[in-house]
Amino acid sequence: MKVAKFGGSSVANAEQLKKVANIIKADKDRRIVVVSAPGKRLSEDIKVTDLLIALGDAYRKGEDYTTELNNVLERFESILIELDLSKHVLKDIVKQVEFITHQGGDLAFKLDAIKAIGEDTLAKILSEYLVKEGLNAKYVNPKDAGLILSDEPGGAQILDESFPILYKLREANEILIIPGFFGYTKAGKLVTFSRGGSDITGSIVAAGVHADLYENFTDVDSVYCVNPQFVPHPKEIHTLTYKEMRELSYAGFSVFHAEALIPAFKGKIPVCIKNTNNPSGRGTMIVSEKPEQAQSVVGIASDDGFVSLYVSKYLMNREIGFGRRLLNILEDEGISFEHTPSGIDDLSVIIREDQLTDEKEQVVINRINKELKPDMVYIDRGLALVMIVGEGMHSFVGTAAKATRAFQDANVNLEMINQGSSEVSMMFGIKEEGVERAVQSLYHVFFE
Amino acid sequence: MKVAKFGGSSVANAEQLKKVANIIKADKDRRIVVVSAPGKRLSEDIKVTDLLIALGDAYRKGEDYTTELNNVLERFESILIELDLSKHVLKDIVKQVEFITHQGGDLAFKLDAIKAIGEDTLAKILSEYLVKEGLNAKYVNPKDAGLILSDEPGGAQILDESFPILYKLREANEILIIPGFFGYTKAGKLVTFSRGGSDITGSIVAAGVHADLYENFTDVDSVYCVNPQFVPHPKEIHTLTYKEMRELSYAGFSVFHAEALIPAFKGKIPVCIKNTNNPSGRGTMIVSEKPEQAQSVVGIASDDGFVSLYVSKYLMNREIGFGRRLLNILEDEGISFEHTPSGIDDLSVIIREDQLTDEKEQVVINRINKELKPDMVYIDRGLALVMIVGEGMHSFVGTAAKATRAFQDANVNLEMINQGSSEVSMMFGIKEEGVERAVQSLYHVFFE
Repeated sequence: MKVAKFGGSSVANAEQLKKVANIIKADKDRRIVVVSAPGKRLSEDIKVTDLLIALGDAYRKGEDYTTELNNVLERFESILIELDLSKHVLKDIVKQVEFITHQGGDLAFKLDAIKAIGEDTLAKILSEYLVKEGLNAKYVNPKDAGLILSDEPGGAQILDESFPILYKLREANEILIIPGFFGYTKAGKLVTFSRGGSDITGSIVAAGVHADLYENFTDVDSVYCVNPQFVPHPKEIHTLTYKEMRELSYAGFSVFHAEALIPAFKGKIPVCIKNTNNPSGRGTMIVSEKPEQAQSVVGIASDDGFVSLYVSKYLMNREIGFGRRLLNILEDEGISFEHTPSGIDDLSVIIREDQLTDEKEQVVINRINKELKPDMVYIDRGLALVMIVGEGMHSFVGTAAKATRAFQDANVNLEMINQGSSEVSMMFGIKEEGVERAVQSLYHVFFE
Repeated sequence: MKVAKFGGSSVANAEQLKKVANIIKADKDRRIVVVSAPGKRLSEDIKVTDLLIALGDAYRKGEDYTTELNNVLERFESILIELDLSKHVLKDIVKQVEFITHQGGDLAFKLDAIKAIGEDTLAKILSEYLVKEGLNAKYVNPKDAGLILSDEPGGAQILDESFPILYKLREANEILIIPGFFGYTKAGKLVTFSRGGSDITGSIVAAGVHADLYENFTDVDSVYCVNPQFVPHPKEIHTLTYKEMRELSYAGFSVFHAEALIPAFKGKIPVCIKNTNNPSGRGTMIVSEKPEQAQSVVGIASDDGFVSLYVSKYLMNREIGFGRRLLNILEDEGISFEHTPSGIDDLSVIIREDQLTDEKEQVVINRINKELKPDMVYIDRGLALVMIVGEGMHSFVGTAAKATRAFQDANVNLEMINQGSSEVSMMFGIKEEGVERAVQSLYHVFFE
């Protein structure tokens, strides 16, 4: 069986929902469907979830939220009219909002319940539409499905006890339509995942029912091997491993929230990213094991906004614990770090720029000077990381030579190279202004 | 003024001492001379310091040490005969040993005092010989010179208060001959540096008197840019910076104890490594600042016996403190590490093999599994590090391309690349069996 998840752009209006219905009809293995709330129809449009957040905001401030509620109702009403469905779900929305806003309890849980109305309503609408189209479909509330989450509104985590309950969804005869993004605590309170949480629901449900495939329908044909901003019409990636996906998403690829993949990854469920607007396209498969005949380098990623903290001290190498003490200072100051390339008597720590404000920079430098007494310490801003990603890649003699040659051809200097025992990626630090040239040159070397 | 230090092979016999005298005569700026104890005359010979250690060992065990004492006396006697000098210093040695072994006090200090007899006697002999040769030379005991050391027999450290006292040595009219390797505690007890400590004495005295140059006379013409075991007759390095020297000595270059250079490094005293047997040779200068016209890559070093500890965990990157906790476990187990190349969800720790016995390996792996719950952890042995060293090197586009190309040409796969923000070196991890091929290929690319 397959679990299919449709993202916000795939359910943005009636026309898109008709495509969704056709996709479901086209494959009888698509037994469970997870949906987002309607997303943007046009670039200047507002997502339903954002309309609901605005409603919640107004309520929180004690303001009148009639306008915000009407905006939400209008979005769904236009869908219902075009799909020729009864408007009773609109009344449900109004009732739900009234119930939430007039009950007692913790504000955070109330805001979560308001945010979840988008997915919940869309799931009801889709199941009604499918029934009207002759399919045996059924809306399933996440509580009934078995999505039991931790007590953390806005950032809840799935509890392990959910999985055996979810497994029973296999027994259903109907096509089950489950709203994404939320679940319920043990005490029965509605809580949401972090933003983009429909992907998480899909991944959890796919793992729970031991799906043969988790299909993630979005609005791109596939994952591309490089950012199309830098290289027009780049090659599509047909197969990616989880690890490769993860490395790519670290540096600029944002197809998936990495957390969303954890349940599918743990359950070894293959994932297919497909385009709702082009469902016959091949899409991109994400799998546990690299296929043998696969190309070694699958993608080139890049991200800027990094900082390098450089510390040198003669004979640093002989001071047991020097590196650990440096990392302790950063942790003390609440700064997470990314990488720590090192020489003999020097050590650099690569940090995301947002972790190191000017204020914190001063504190950190002062503490390092006082506690570690280095010969030199300084901060270098404006660093970008460029990664070539491919599982098993580094066991091919010459990949490094090819890559460094590409940087040379692009006349981009290497500030840092970091390749671990990992076989998944090779990482290069360069000045931000060289990113586009470097990525183009790497694409040329590895894909043209 | 210059401080000249002569190592064990430079003072191994009368013939060598005559060369030393000629070197001192040849430059009137050589005002202070530091000497080792006589080293090996031939490869199967025993160094005087080792004879003295044997004497100390016998004494420690309560055994008769007449044979050991006679061995020491014979070595010096043959020097005295050939230089045609009075044998009164031999009586001094016997008296010293008697005095040390018959007094009370801590054994560690007594053994230090026995070990120091080699340098002390040689300094006396050299000064007498220089006087006989018509030079105004004078033996100076380290206590009178001002070498005040910490209370750590066998591994003493210089105390800062020594330096202003040492500075007064500038005022002497004589050529001062100072025995290396030892000094005195504040309480007046003789203590030695760690083995090879004559280099340390030389470096301290050079820094103390603000010498224009610290000449270190040994038995090689210069530092070579690569290990002559791998490349016959490699190019000489004429100028090295302290940092370059340090990086080279990390991975297989053993011209100097790195600690020995600290006082000279801090005092910014240039060092010249010269050959007693070829004093007119250019030698190798070690300086603070890289000369502008210097070649960017100065040397290729390599060392084997490394281990890689690999840890991977999906989303490791989001766990604040993961890296620090891993290093904590190693520190807890008394294991010092060298480098930590990292991917996104994996981290390798490069450790010297002698730090990680099979027993400790099991403890460490168990603790990592228990405390960090990784997806995977394993140890990879038989790793070698190859470094190309040159200050300012990495700011030249193309050095990395050239280097990786050399590995490819040698058909040696790269397990690891680690280049920090440091501009001093680029480090490559490879399997041990590829070292010779890789080094030869790098030599070809950078020096031929």
